[in-house]
Amino acid sequence: MPVYRLNIAYDGSGFRGYAKQTGIRTVQGELESALTTYLKEPVATSVAGRTDSGVHARGQVVSFETEAGIDLERFRRALNGIVGPEVSVREASVAADDFNARFSATWRRYRYLIDIGSAPDPLRRHVAWHVDRGLDVETMRATSTVLLGEHDFSSFCRSTDARSNIRNLTELSLVDADGFLEVWAQANAFCHQMVRSLVGYLYDVGRGFSDPSAAGEVLAASDRSMVATVAPAHGLTLWEVGYR
Amino acid sequence: MPVYRLNIAYDGSGFRGYAKQTGIRTVQGELESALTTYLKEPVATSVAGRTDSGVHARGQVVSFETEAGIDLERFRRALNGIVGPEVSVREASVAADDFNARFSATWRRYRYLIDIGSAPDPLRRHVAWHVDRGLDVETMRATSTVLLGEHDFSSFCRSTDARSNIRNLTELSLVDADGFLEVWAQANAFCHQMVRSLVGYLYDVGRGFSDPSAAGEVLAASDRSMVATVAPAHGLTLWEVGYR
Repeated sequence: MPVYRLNIAYDGSGFRGYAKQTGIRTVQGELESALTTYLKEPVATSVAGRTDSGVHARGQVVSFETEAGIDLERFRRALNGIVGPEVSVREASVAADDFNARFSATWRRYRYLIDIGSAPDPLRRHVAWHVDRGLDVETMRATSTVLLGEHDFSSFCRSTDARSNIRNLTELSLVDADGFLEVWAQANAFCHQMVRSLVGYLYDVGRGFSDPSAAGEVLAASDRSMVATVAPAHGLTLWEVGYR
Repeated sequence: MPVYRLNIAYDGSGFRGYAKQTGIRTVQGELESALTTYLKEPVATSVAGRTDSGVHARGQVVSFETEAGIDLERFRRALNGIVGPEVSVREASVAADDFNARFSATWRRYRYLIDIGSAPDPLRRHVAWHVDRGLDVETMRATSTVLLGEHDFSSFCRSTDARSNIRNLTELSLVDADGFLEVWAQANAFCHQMVRSLVGYLYDVGRGFSDPSAAGEVLAASDRSMVATVAPAHGLTLWEVGYR
């Protein structure tokens, strides 16, 4: 069956996360409902990153199959008419027959935005976590490098089920941006709440609550209780997804 | 009397403009009410830019006089507790005795953000005007230079009262920014709706509705009816104010 790919962005503020849940407003719920309305058939989608409640996306990728003939640009505009303005379909395209937004993805990249201004920026308060205290960014930066590479990230994963928490973290960088601190995280995949736990841990290091020299031990412990702070959801944005 | 200066930012979405109006929620109304609460005396403020309903600010400047002794940092935090998160007091300082936020200002700088993406960016929909059609940015840019300098801007001013509409426009530049077009406008001062009229006019030029070669005539006519389009308020942000 023909496979279609959508690049979407959304403001997560008004949604209880991406993944569909009966009777609850979610991005997937709204999107599949719009697809079903337009295509006049039930549509099941696959997604690159199942973002949590309140998390945003700039470059989320969704795929689905249908035999229905689609005029791509007309389809894209009609979808936006239904799901906008909180969700936006940036691109709609025909993908390879074996494309799957989740399983074909080779990396995900997130941005976490920390507002380090003297008072929260009113215009970015929905996408940034304002922290009131001074952060030792250089120590946070040095600590972040310890976490890079392929590890069992169980200390930074919310739930450990039967599956592995081994991930390959290829980027964890901190960028100063005019009153904001951007934390960029890229990995082949992320376990549940991993970016927010990494940011929470770096925040604890930056404010002197965690010993930066223990970062290797925290990682090696594979113990969720080692990380006290999970950064709030609204600072997180799924930025981009990579495919072969 | 000692003069104080506040640098403030605000999300204009929830306000009917900056200027106080009885019974209506405005930034000045909220701010003066907070000042009166904290200082326990009526406080009258002066402001650098009286922004319209829906217009935002990143670097607005406000001044007021009081004999009350003020612990600046404590005062700033207390104010933020009252007016936040839609309004943010970034800095509070003691100013020179003859400082007045409005009359001492030598220039104002605004950013107008145009979203030229295929669909509106959900995360910036409150601060950007999404335009659906392709714009000829090079022609807009060439036209913008004709408008630079000291002119009677009556064609770009909403109301012409007894006062002069002569202003010195020192910058009107267009910057490509990853799916957005930033229009930066700086002048000694702006008449009412001037930035939004300049942007509306450039938009009409960019989409082929206005003849770019007539820009000089439009300006020389000093006739409001020459400019058909006023860009919507929510794309505009007062960025910075300059003082001697």
